[in-house]
Amino acid sequence: MTAITPRPVDAVIAAARELLGERLSTNATVREQHAKGEDSTTPTLPDAVAFVRTTEEVSRLLALCHRHDVPVTPFGAGTSLEGHVNPVRGGISLDLSQMAAILEVNAEDMDCVIEPGVTRQQLNEHLRDKGMFFPVDPGSHCTIGGMVATRASGTNAVRYGTIREQVLGLEVVLADGRVIETGGRTRKAANGYDLTRMFIGSEGTLGVVTRVRLRLHGIPEAMSAAVVQFDALEGAVQSVIEVMQMGIPVARIELLDDDMMAACIGFSKLEGYAVRTTLFLEFHGTDAGVREQAEAVEAITAGHGASGFQWATDPAERAKLWKARHDSYWAGIASRPGWKALTTDVCVPISRLAEALVGAKREAQALGHPTCIVGHVGDGNFHQMVLYDPADPQGLERAWDMDRRIVERGLALGGTCSGEHGIGLGKREFLEREHGAEALSVMRGIKQALDPKGILNPGKMFRN
Amino acid sequence: MTAITPRPVDAVIAAARELLGERLSTNATVREQHAKGEDSTTPTLPDAVAFVRTTEEVSRLLALCHRHDVPVTPFGAGTSLEGHVNPVRGGISLDLSQMAAILEVNAEDMDCVIEPGVTRQQLNEHLRDKGMFFPVDPGSHCTIGGMVATRASGTNAVRYGTIREQVLGLEVVLADGRVIETGGRTRKAANGYDLTRMFIGSEGTLGVVTRVRLRLHGIPEAMSAAVVQFDALEGAVQSVIEVMQMGIPVARIELLDDDMMAACIGFSKLEGYAVRTTLFLEFHGTDAGVREQAEAVEAITAGHGASGFQWATDPAERAKLWKARHDSYWAGIASRPGWKALTTDVCVPISRLAEALVGAKREAQALGHPTCIVGHVGDGNFHQMVLYDPADPQGLERAWDMDRRIVERGLALGGTCSGEHGIGLGKREFLEREHGAEALSVMRGIKQALDPKGILNPGKMFRN
Repeated sequence: MTAITPRPVDAVIAAARELLGERLSTNATVREQHAKGEDSTTPTLPDAVAFVRTTEEVSRLLALCHRHDVPVTPFGAGTSLEGHVNPVRGGISLDLSQMAAILEVNAEDMDCVIEPGVTRQQLNEHLRDKGMFFPVDPGSHCTIGGMVATRASGTNAVRYGTIREQVLGLEVVLADGRVIETGGRTRKAANGYDLTRMFIGSEGTLGVVTRVRLRLHGIPEAMSAAVVQFDALEGAVQSVIEVMQMGIPVARIELLDDDMMAACIGFSKLEGYAVRTTLFLEFHGTDAGVREQAEAVEAITAGHGASGFQWATDPAERAKLWKARHDSYWAGIASRPGWKALTTDVCVPISRLAEALVGAKREAQALGHPTCIVGHVGDGNFHQMVLYDPADPQGLERAWDMDRRIVERGLALGGTCSGEHGIGLGKREFLEREHGAEALSVMRGIKQALDPKGILNPGKMFRN
Repeated sequence: MTAITPRPVDAVIAAARELLGERLSTNATVREQHAKGEDSTTPTLPDAVAFVRTTEEVSRLLALCHRHDVPVTPFGAGTSLEGHVNPVRGGISLDLSQMAAILEVNAEDMDCVIEPGVTRQQLNEHLRDKGMFFPVDPGSHCTIGGMVATRASGTNAVRYGTIREQVLGLEVVLADGRVIETGGRTRKAANGYDLTRMFIGSEGTLGVVTRVRLRLHGIPEAMSAAVVQFDALEGAVQSVIEVMQMGIPVARIELLDDDMMAACIGFSKLEGYAVRTTLFLEFHGTDAGVREQAEAVEAITAGHGASGFQWATDPAERAKLWKARHDSYWAGIASRPGWKALTTDVCVPISRLAEALVGAKREAQALGHPTCIVGHVGDGNFHQMVLYDPADPQGLERAWDMDRRIVERGLALGGTCSGEHGIGLGKREFLEREHGAEALSVMRGIKQALDPKGILNPGKMFRN
């Protein structure tokens, strides 16, 4: 036997095992679970998975990796759709899911401090009897740390904004293990560079978020939901455009095309709805305000070929409706057993939404694969799901081609390749296209300033 | 006569004169006009003032200054209260006030593109017949470029957010003359580092903003204003805290203490109001919504010793009220002819507002100088004006001491030294205190990455 030169990662693993004990795992199954997210990327095994529990542990682990030039890929719930958690250069998968404490809830200032592994469901469960809620709701059971990393949003963003608007401050461990705090407790501040916003959406490439201070919102006095169905996609989209242009403060306005409705009716046992293009709406406010908003929206939709409102005022019925909406991704996949899905994330200015959506649907249908659309249409953002047969060697390739064409169309309409899923691996080619070489060089300059050795989530966002 | 070694700035001046002709001025009066803002700093003459008109001119001028290591201090309307436009290291004062075109207004997407020299008044005048408005309204006739640079806000921020929430994208000239675009046209995006937010609030130290894409808002269907007066400061502050905690979506909720009311009644000829602590309120929404909000606020204030609402529903009366509010800074100064004013800008979590405000007022009164308070209290932000006699050699010094003590109290309550005026020269000592040495080193790292020669507004924000 020849001697094997020890790899840098082995030194990290040895030291990390002293730090974390059994929470440093090189078990094959654990590594496989951290080899990719819910995306369609080719899995890559990390050399080890570190289940951290404290900021101190993150700090010491990053200092170690920094010293030995070992890549670190942060991992939350593994729900990324763009390859963010795929450790493409190996090294350590830094699993933050056990850092899931809710550390403070301040009713007076309507804010809270949480660890990054807390999910939105856990937080809202905790807040329920306090009269407050946290509005950002991506479809999955993702962690709030992951939501910060990808600048996530969801169905309420049209009214409450994305995670960007909810974060008051962060605790971040830098690449070399130093710990900083950003932001503060005030509603606004003009006190230096906006480091909070710099880390939001940086996809784990600039630092590891270990605490988040969030704004909370009061549960509205009145809430009601409604479903309205249309003969044609165009009528639904035109309704949305008009609602937004009139400034009606809808809390949610979500579009499901006929294919998606078919999938959801089957998957979520929705009764009483037709297989037609549908808007799911929610209104928040006072009793009178909610009524006013709903009446205004009803009038608009009636003008665009809608066939009347169906109300869901009962809390259980509302909950069922939104659960169906949140499960639509799974409904889409379940509509063709054995097949997988690629999901686009284009976002366009609201005036161009009809062109983007109708064009995307027409093009996707021509592919011959099952496809369906769900969209946060009030923000101009929609997801075209394109299913593919993993047994078909060309299936994924064709789906990617379709994704690219839909993005191209979105960009041509003044939009972006990603409204909320992020760049990760899947959208890197578009980053430069959207921002231009000089702006990208500024981003690279920031990356270089914060992570000169390039150990934090390497290979993501930038094509090297 | 001995030969004088040519200074680097002379080379820049010679080349800039070829570029700009008479718009490159070394005239003593022009230089004096660019030696400081509306602050209390010691004026510094720039070597020359460049009145630029195009991005191309800014780009070529910055490339020149970069080559010759000559400082550049951007200048808008000169309304900074923290020394931002004081060219403390000489060099070029870059006057952007002639870049004042409104380039696009898109009613469908409710956005616009403007040059940085446009003031909020100019923009709103332009928008008036289009049913839209731009909500950010600092007290002065400042430029929107300056507002972007200082992360400005104003009276509407409690409802509409600060400039940070209004900017969709920027065109920025970098230190070496390269031009980049940030952001885009969509309401949200998860497409790379948030360069837009990095430049907002960077006070001209990272780049020069040459175009701004702004979100606009629909003029509400109904608006009404009200004035409510209190026996004691505490009652007014407790009312504000309760309004915010109940989530009533007031458009404006501004506090003027008794001293400020006395000044405004005299300066703005306000009739029918007593010299007492006063809240100025505005409600936006539908007819019913505005009525609901006002009734809820009236009930809250009645519970805290208020003596009834006085309505200002007539547009002319409303305009007079808000003009008086916006002129309060001038009213404060005019209350003691010949004296000048220092203005604090502390912002605290809403739950600590009473302690911060009442404490600041008590302390300022003990100084023996005329003082008065005006505040964006819904955001936890207030300005304590401390007047001083410029003929008194210790006057300014005592005012600064007071400012420092008020900031110290704000920081101890979890607040920040600046809610909206920025760091500039005046608040540099607090930047490190608030963020800590490590976070400050990250800010310096960003500065170094974007402006390695340190030519952009040197001496500001950081103490070197």
